[in-house]
Amino acid sequence: MTEAIRTAVFEELAAVGYARMSIEGIARRAGVGKTAVYRRWRSKLQLVLDLVSAIAVQGLPAPDTGTLEGDLRLLYEVTSRALRHPVASQVIPDLQAEAARNPEIAGAMQKALREGQASVVSGIVAAARARGEIRTEIDGELALDVISGPLYWRAVVIRGPKPPKGYLESLTRATTAALKAL
Amino acid sequence: MTEAIRTAVFEELAAVGYARMSIEGIARRAGVGKTAVYRRWRSKLQLVLDLVSAIAVQGLPAPDTGTLEGDLRLLYEVTSRALRHPVASQVIPDLQAEAARNPEIAGAMQKALREGQASVVSGIVAAARARGEIRTEIDGELALDVISGPLYWRAVVIRGPKPPKGYLESLTRATTAALKAL
Repeated sequence: MTEAIRTAVFEELAAVGYARMSIEGIARRAGVGKTAVYRRWRSKLQLVLDLVSAIAVQGLPAPDTGTLEGDLRLLYEVTSRALRHPVASQVIPDLQAEAARNPEIAGAMQKALREGQASVVSGIVAAARARGEIRTEIDGELALDVISGPLYWRAVVIRGPKPPKGYLESLTRATTAALKAL
Repeated sequence: MTEAIRTAVFEELAAVGYARMSIEGIARRAGVGKTAVYRRWRSKLQLVLDLVSAIAVQGLPAPDTGTLEGDLRLLYEVTSRALRHPVASQVIPDLQAEAARNPEIAGAMQKALREGQASVVSGIVAAARARGEIRTEIDGELALDVISGPLYWRAVVIRGPKPPKGYLESLTRATTAALKAL
């Protein structure tokens, strides 16, 4: 039943957003009573924090192709697919909006990010450093911004259409050159 | 009085978010009656759309330093300051969350983006093309993602601290190299 409630939270978040989401609405969607939800989570905030943490733990696969360019190409393939999922493209901006005024959600999002995207990226950067593909003194934070920003901007900010054929290859080439110039 | 109401909308948006914002709250904050607000705007949606359009028209100054690197450096200086404004860092994610489920807001945001950030960036890219600094066949959409993604990711997604000294210079170097590799 916990799984049914989790799924309902995702659907409800995508449909109405965090601010308008209610425990009643979640219970209705999950086909359970309100008390069944309250027995597991004290509030909708707890529910959402639990959900965000669960996603972070799943994480992304860490690419290990032997070259910076190969690793980035794989990362972009996986990230692009994840970001284009309809639930992600509605739920992420929503949680981000909440994070702007709720420190608990902001903290959970930051933690999820560090344990997910950021840890995979720092693995890729560390491997490239070790192979001598990029300078050892490179700023890890800046590398994260350069690697992760463009796809996120396109999928979540611009809400652009599916990237055209060749887009991910070109982005990989551009990002590789950017890191090597640092 | 219109200006007082516009300011109140911004403050109210930042404080409680679009979903929880009410005409009552705006009127109270602006120190006017509800009917004064309704006389000018039919709904809070109309109010917010009007606000977004007004921001877009202001636009960003178009840099013209004579080099791609110089133009990007200036763009980042201005954008970084704008994105770090407390109102921007709360209102932008909020409107983006609404855009995910409200096509009218999504349309207004897209239009604002095209008339603001995107038009400045395509000016910079066109000038670099004309000077032969980058290839003429470069994909303008990809260039926009590469140029605009990283700062946005840092300011709005990660909600990181103020970039350390030297950050914008390094980002400029990285992005210039990325565009030249395309």
